[in-house]
Amino acid sequence: MEVKNKHVVIKHQFEDAPKESNFEIKTGVFSLSVEPGSDDIIVKNLCISIDPYQINRMKSFSSSHHTISFAEPITPGEAIDGAVIGKVVASGNAKFQKDDLVLGVFTWAEYSLVKEGNIIKKIESSEFSLSYHLGVLGFNGLSAYAGFFELCKPLKGEKVFVSAASGAVGNLVGQYAKLLGCYVVGCAGSQKKVALLKEKLGFDDAFNYKEEKDLNSTLKRYFHDGIDIYFDNVGGEMLNAAIANMKAFGRVAICGVISEYTDDTKRASPNMLNIVYKRINIRGFLAADFLNVFEDFSAKTSDYLRTGKLKVIEDVSSGVESIPSAFVGLFNGDNIGKKIINLAEE
Amino acid sequence: MEVKNKHVVIKHQFEDAPKESNFEIKTGVFSLSVEPGSDDIIVKNLCISIDPYQINRMKSFSSSHHTISFAEPITPGEAIDGAVIGKVVASGNAKFQKDDLVLGVFTWAEYSLVKEGNIIKKIESSEFSLSYHLGVLGFNGLSAYAGFFELCKPLKGEKVFVSAASGAVGNLVGQYAKLLGCYVVGCAGSQKKVALLKEKLGFDDAFNYKEEKDLNSTLKRYFHDGIDIYFDNVGGEMLNAAIANMKAFGRVAICGVISEYTDDTKRASPNMLNIVYKRINIRGFLAADFLNVFEDFSAKTSDYLRTGKLKVIEDVSSGVESIPSAFVGLFNGDNIGKKIINLAEE
Repeated sequence: MEVKNKHVVIKHQFEDAPKESNFEIKTGVFSLSVEPGSDDIIVKNLCISIDPYQINRMKSFSSSHHTISFAEPITPGEAIDGAVIGKVVASGNAKFQKDDLVLGVFTWAEYSLVKEGNIIKKIESSEFSLSYHLGVLGFNGLSAYAGFFELCKPLKGEKVFVSAASGAVGNLVGQYAKLLGCYVVGCAGSQKKVALLKEKLGFDDAFNYKEEKDLNSTLKRYFHDGIDIYFDNVGGEMLNAAIANMKAFGRVAICGVISEYTDDTKRASPNMLNIVYKRINIRGFLAADFLNVFEDFSAKTSDYLRTGKLKVIEDVSSGVESIPSAFVGLFNGDNIGKKIINLAEE
Repeated sequence: MEVKNKHVVIKHQFEDAPKESNFEIKTGVFSLSVEPGSDDIIVKNLCISIDPYQINRMKSFSSSHHTISFAEPITPGEAIDGAVIGKVVASGNAKFQKDDLVLGVFTWAEYSLVKEGNIIKKIESSEFSLSYHLGVLGFNGLSAYAGFFELCKPLKGEKVFVSAASGAVGNLVGQYAKLLGCYVVGCAGSQKKVALLKEKLGFDDAFNYKEEKDLNSTLKRYFHDGIDIYFDNVGGEMLNAAIANMKAFGRVAICGVISEYTDDTKRASPNMLNIVYKRINIRGFLAADFLNVFEDFSAKTSDYLRTGKLKVIEDVSSGVESIPSAFVGLFNGDNIGKKIINLAEE
């Protein structure tokens, strides 16, 4: 049986902020049956994770990071791949059966043809909303958990600053930090987001960076005695200001640098003398390096979710057609929390 | 008994590269006897350590780092303090006797009036040249040893890049790295220094950064497969280029950033995406935080000196009058190795 299958491609590589016109929705004919003798798996996609890092795969620059699988350049005209949850429609592979729910690296499409190697795991239980496995219980959650606990080694009472604090990772870092007993301030790009951080997510304080003229003074206002831990999702000027306000032996986890992805002139240029005199430790990291703590992360986070101690913030759009604007919106600050595309019900 | 005592002061704070005219040699009258009832110690200074970090104490900026004792601002008109070795002339303190050799934070002067708290230690044995205790066996050596071994956790065979590699710390880092079995490349600012690194100190390779147009390509030339460890003494563009050339899980120890001390516009602005994707760890550090390994450092380094495995490079001037030009010269790359001022023989 054949169906029409919409998928998203980029028309060409680009260097600046993405525009919807950089993308195209293509429609192909897609067979729902596996060829005899093939071990392919055919998946109907249910929900798609929309993540800022993908921008880096759309630049010509991206080829320099080809040693990291998820940093491989996206080829214009070819289906874009990313984290997706789908349901098996047909399988030539004995490990996967029809109706299995699978999470993996599939295409931004209604249906994907998948190899065993594309599948990260089966989702056995559905205690939580499926989409949680793309966010709070997936790599965003692991980024927050591992970046905060494993890299930053936080202590109760320490002062924590989180940028892009209403984003998919940032909001979780702030909530983990509060659960540990830290003092947590977040920044975000709108009053609505700031209100969410303070009122719903329990941040001690939050500010709208767009309303601040001198980020250095802003951080001094929120952290009189300095910052112990900065969880960085944005880079650029905010990183400079954070480093200027760190305490001695402060730790900076660099999870992402969204302000730099679309404007290479916005690079952070922190005062290195601060880094020396305050013995600051700056570490870039990838959640994929912390699979060893996945079980621990998953168990604790599931518990927090069950007891309502951790709130989940999702921003959901529907349909393949909504992917370009959803992706572009990440760089305009349109999303609040984890950006998800729903394609079909389970 | 009273003597004339020359000492060095700055005339005013300044922000840019130091000039000899920023300094003044003053002559005062100095009593060689301790006042009755005082526990002061009077020291005749024998040799003085000239270190780049002092520039940061001469800037108005310096006050922001006042929590670190050796970063305290230098007051114009008042004697500058720094690491000095001297001989006790008179003592009101029972712990110190006439003719004791003491290392401490004394003034850039012929004689210093010293409190017990200014003395870091007595030098009991003089197996080595006294000045070694200011360099290879002192805080420069500890910076190299702790920054390399404790922070960077080097493995035999790893690829190490050292900037300011003929400087007081850099030359030791390179030699320690070679003794461990690393591949070591250094950069310096003259052909003479490059020759020293390759021919006398055993570096695998070295280059004159002033002759290179594109440091990024330069480092690619010396490190085809990337850099495991970058020991940074300069900051600025070299740090950018090093980060662009790091391997995954590369480590960067920031010991100093001399290129940035005298020109705030030269700040490093590394590509943060490299830091994330390569999971680079950047750490600023101070040797003073590693006094726990001093014994180990001192024992191993003394052994290396005895067996001739470690070479000592000193650049010596004589007399208080030579201090301003010696200090200014640090920022012009005039010195090769540890800059020492000899004032008197033991």
